[in-house]
Amino acid sequence: MSQLPLAITSGDCAGIGPEITAQAIAAFPDETFALYTHKPLFERACHQAKVTIPENIIWCDLPLNTTLDAIHPGKNQAATGDLAYRAVCQAGQAVLAGHARGLVTAPFSKAALHLAGHTDVPGHTELLARLCGREEATMAFFAPHLIISLVTIHCALSAVPALITPARLLRVLRDTAEATQRLLKRRPKIGVLALNPHAGECGAFGNEEAAVIIPALHQAQTWADFEGPLVPDTALITAPHKPRYDAFVAMYHDQGLIPFKHVAFDCGVNVTLGLPIIRTSPDHGTAFDLAWQGKASPKSMVQAIHYARQLTP
Amino acid sequence: MSQLPLAITSGDCAGIGPEITAQAIAAFPDETFALYTHKPLFERACHQAKVTIPENIIWCDLPLNTTLDAIHPGKNQAATGDLAYRAVCQAGQAVLAGHARGLVTAPFSKAALHLAGHTDVPGHTELLARLCGREEATMAFFAPHLIISLVTIHCALSAVPALITPARLLRVLRDTAEATQRLLKRRPKIGVLALNPHAGECGAFGNEEAAVIIPALHQAQTWADFEGPLVPDTALITAPHKPRYDAFVAMYHDQGLIPFKHVAFDCGVNVTLGLPIIRTSPDHGTAFDLAWQGKASPKSMVQAIHYARQLTP
Repeated sequence: MSQLPLAITSGDCAGIGPEITAQAIAAFPDETFALYTHKPLFERACHQAKVTIPENIIWCDLPLNTTLDAIHPGKNQAATGDLAYRAVCQAGQAVLAGHARGLVTAPFSKAALHLAGHTDVPGHTELLARLCGREEATMAFFAPHLIISLVTIHCALSAVPALITPARLLRVLRDTAEATQRLLKRRPKIGVLALNPHAGECGAFGNEEAAVIIPALHQAQTWADFEGPLVPDTALITAPHKPRYDAFVAMYHDQGLIPFKHVAFDCGVNVTLGLPIIRTSPDHGTAFDLAWQGKASPKSMVQAIHYARQLTP
Repeated sequence: MSQLPLAITSGDCAGIGPEITAQAIAAFPDETFALYTHKPLFERACHQAKVTIPENIIWCDLPLNTTLDAIHPGKNQAATGDLAYRAVCQAGQAVLAGHARGLVTAPFSKAALHLAGHTDVPGHTELLARLCGREEATMAFFAPHLIISLVTIHCALSAVPALITPARLLRVLRDTAEATQRLLKRRPKIGVLALNPHAGECGAFGNEEAAVIIPALHQAQTWADFEGPLVPDTALITAPHKPRYDAFVAMYHDQGLIPFKHVAFDCGVNVTLGLPIIRTSPDHGTAFDLAWQGKASPKSMVQAIHYARQLTP
C-alpha cells in the first residue's frame, strides 16, 4: 500500500456527511485519510450523532463563513454549501498536486451550493472535470459484481440520441475498460447496451446501433472484449448472480440506473472515471431528515472508500 | 364463473407453444378452453414432449397448409407461421362475437409470420388492435404485486418524446386504471413515471413532465389516484416487496421492461388493454431451442390464464 493518504470530504455538514465519514474512516484503520472539512463543525455533528471520530485522520481544516451555532442540522444553508464546495475544490487540487492518491466525497446539496452562489455546478462529476481542465468525465456505478458506466448523464431523454457520438462513446468505452482492468487485473469482458428497444430490431426501431454503436465496438476491441449492442431489457437480469460480463456500458441515465438500483440499492458507489484523479462517492444524498442522529447507514460510504483503494495505485 | 369458455391459441406449433398450452390448461380443470390450433400437429408436439393433453378442451381445429411430416420442431416455417396467424385472428373474432370471454395466446414467431407473407404484424398487440378496428391498444405487464403499462411500445428511443401526447397518455392512464380496478375490485393507486431522469429536475432535463404529464395526471384523477411524475430510477425499487402503488405507467418500452424483468423474470404476463376483448400471453418467445422436449416451463402461460380469468367477467 502506498504511503500517500486518501483525500476525503465530509460533504454537506448539515446532512449525514460527518457521521458516515467518521464511521467509514473507522472501518479502514490501516489507511490514512486527509479529511477536508471544518473541524469544529465535524466534531459537533459526530458528537450529536454519538459517533466516535477515529485517529487515522490528517485534518485539513477549512474556515466556516459563519459561527458554529448558526449551523442547523437538516437544512440547506449557504455556509455549509460553501464549505462543501471549497472542500471538494481543495481536496481535488491536493490529489492533482500529488499530495493524496485518490478522492472520496460525501454527498453535498446542490440547493445549498446554490444558496452559496455556486449555481453552475450540476454535481461532483462536472465540478471535478472542470477542476481537471476537462470538458467531460465518465460517470460510473460500482457494486459487488456489477459495474455500469453511462455514455450520457444529466440531460433530457430527447437529447440522448444526438449525444451518442462516436467520440463520446469511445471515451466511455476506454474509461470503462481501463477502470475494470485496474480492478480485476485482467482483460475485461464488457457488455454494451443498445440505445433502442430490442436493440433496434434490425433497424425497425432506430438505426443508432448500426450507425454508431457497432462501429465503435469494433474500434474499441483493443481495450477490452466488448460485446453488444445488447437488448437493454434483458442484458442485466443475470447480473450479479451469474455475471456474464465484468462491466456494462449504458447509453443513458435511467437505462443504467434503473437496473443498478434494483441490484445494488444500498451498497452502490458512484465513481468518476476519465480524469487524472479517481473519485468515488456513495450513491445517495445528504439525507437531511436523518442528519446528526446516528441513524444513517455508512455502508455505501464504506464501499466508496473500498473502491477508491482498489482503483488507486 | 361464467359458462363461456376462454379462447386460447397454441402459438407457433414448431416452438414450445403446444406443450406449455396443454400443461397450462391442465392447471385449470374447472375451466373450459376453446383451443385454436391444428389438432394433429398439437397432438404430435405434445406426444414428443411427453405431455398429456387434458380433457377440458373444445377443439377449434384449423387446417395446416402442408403435411404433418413436413413440420420440423425448432424451425421458422411458413406453414406454422400461417397457422399461428390464423389462430389469433379466428380466436380473436370468436371473443368479439361473444363465443368466448377472453383470449390467451401462446407465443408466435414474427420471422415465421414473415415467411407466410404476414409482413405487417409487429406483434399480437397490434394484430388484435387491427382485428378490433382500433389504431392502438395498451400493452401492459402483470406479475404478482406488479403491474406496468407502457405509453409507447415498439419505436426508436428518439421517437418517444414526440409520442408522449395528451391523448395517448390519457388513453393508457384510463386503460390501466380500469384493468387494475377490475383486478383489485377497488379504486387503485397508480404511480406514473417521469420521462426524464430525476423527473426532469424542475425543467433542467426536459419539460415533458410540466407540459404533458402533470396536466394529464390532473385530468385522470376521476379514474384512479394517480401520483407522479415519479423519478424513474427509484420508483420501482420497493415493488413488489413493499408496494407503494397498485400499478405503474412507464413512458417507454425499456423504462418499464427493465424493472419488470428484474422483478418478474419467469412469471410475467403480457396483457393487452383498451380493446373490447381482454388478451393475455406469457412474457417469453417461442423458445425453438427447447421445442417438443418437455423442458419448457409453463409457469408464465399458467399466469397468463390466471390473469385472463381475473380480468374477464
